[in-house]
Amino acid sequence: MKDEKGILFILSGPSGVGKGTVRKALFERDPDLAYSISVTTRQAREGEQNGVDYFFKTKDEVKKMIEQGEFIEYAEYVGNYYGTPKAYVEQTLEEGRDVFLEIEVQGALQVKENFPEGVFIFLFPPSLEELKNRIISRGTETEDLVRNRLLEAKKEIEMMDAYDYVVVNDDVHNAVDRIESIVVSEHCKRERIASQYKKALGSVEL
Amino acid sequence: MKDEKGILFILSGPSGVGKGTVRKALFERDPDLAYSISVTTRQAREGEQNGVDYFFKTKDEVKKMIEQGEFIEYAEYVGNYYGTPKAYVEQTLEEGRDVFLEIEVQGALQVKENFPEGVFIFLFPPSLEELKNRIISRGTETEDLVRNRLLEAKKEIEMMDAYDYVVVNDDVHNAVDRIESIVVSEHCKRERIASQYKKALGSVEL
Repeated sequence: MKDEKGILFILSGPSGVGKGTVRKALFERDPDLAYSISVTTRQAREGEQNGVDYFFKTKDEVKKMIEQGEFIEYAEYVGNYYGTPKAYVEQTLEEGRDVFLEIEVQGALQVKENFPEGVFIFLFPPSLEELKNRIISRGTETEDLVRNRLLEAKKEIEMMDAYDYVVVNDDVHNAVDRIESIVVSEHCKRERIASQYKKALGSVEL
Repeated sequence: MKDEKGILFILSGPSGVGKGTVRKALFERDPDLAYSISVTTRQAREGEQNGVDYFFKTKDEVKKMIEQGEFIEYAEYVGNYYGTPKAYVEQTLEEGRDVFLEIEVQGALQVKENFPEGVFIFLFPPSLEELKNRIISRGTETEDLVRNRLLEAKKEIEMMDAYDYVVVNDDVHNAVDRIESIVVSEHCKRERIASQYKKALGSVEL
């Protein structure tokens, strides 16, 4: 029964919760998932590759893409732009493949407006203390930025209500297990598949 | 975060689809699940044990239990009664354990009225032909009964719309994998857990 369209999954959550790490572990296990690479204007961190982790672009380039409506969502976050190219997502879903977006909370809320049928997963820190430690240990932020990011994170957690699922990132492999279960179970949702099944039965002689 | 109540899962589907086999395989893998043993007035089949597969009771005994409101659901099906004892289910959910009911479609619809917060899983035959073969190969039914059961099954499949999930029983282990994923993902549903998480964060100093 593979007339089914793909499902758009949105993995989001507060800054520092470990979205990137979880997403990478998920894609290592499940190479059939299509990952939509975001566009960003922020500096590449050590080890990040253009066209793999992000498409790194200038602000002028991104502003032009925004004007031309080429994003499914975009956000300005801590002074930089992040955006998801629209065409790739739509085309991949039509092919019957699931698409995974890993994005900031602001972006997820925009996707919710454009794709309410998407499945929204909120990655949750084991505790705010833990989140603080992770942001600090990343070592890329000043003290003021750390405080800013934590305040932002607390606000973002308030937005949890817009999401379908909450997954605690207590351990990367546990988090990935839970996300994989969500993917499987969403494909079993009655409203997605009941009409196909009924059609398949219609023609049978008793 | 284990203040969480258990979830009531209802595994149902047309007669002959293999509910019992799937339920047994599920419980072998996952001994923490609580299975609510049904009461029935039908004859025990070979290998079935009283108090393990069912509580086998007389019609008079069951009628008395119905009068006293001791069932979460009950149904008369092909001349026999099947019912689920209420007290056990409620108590187990309060203890934070999930309860699994394996019941006929009529019974599931009654549970839906009494426990709309239950999670309803419809086990689906790979095809009606396959369902017919399974009912015949069970070898316990006359030709008329087989035809009756198939007509019943077709009607039951029409009732799929009352369910949350549809799981194809193409292979027992695949079906159990999907059901386990549904269990995990239901525990990640935002509306079940968001308030606990927010509470846990409320007290943190920034």
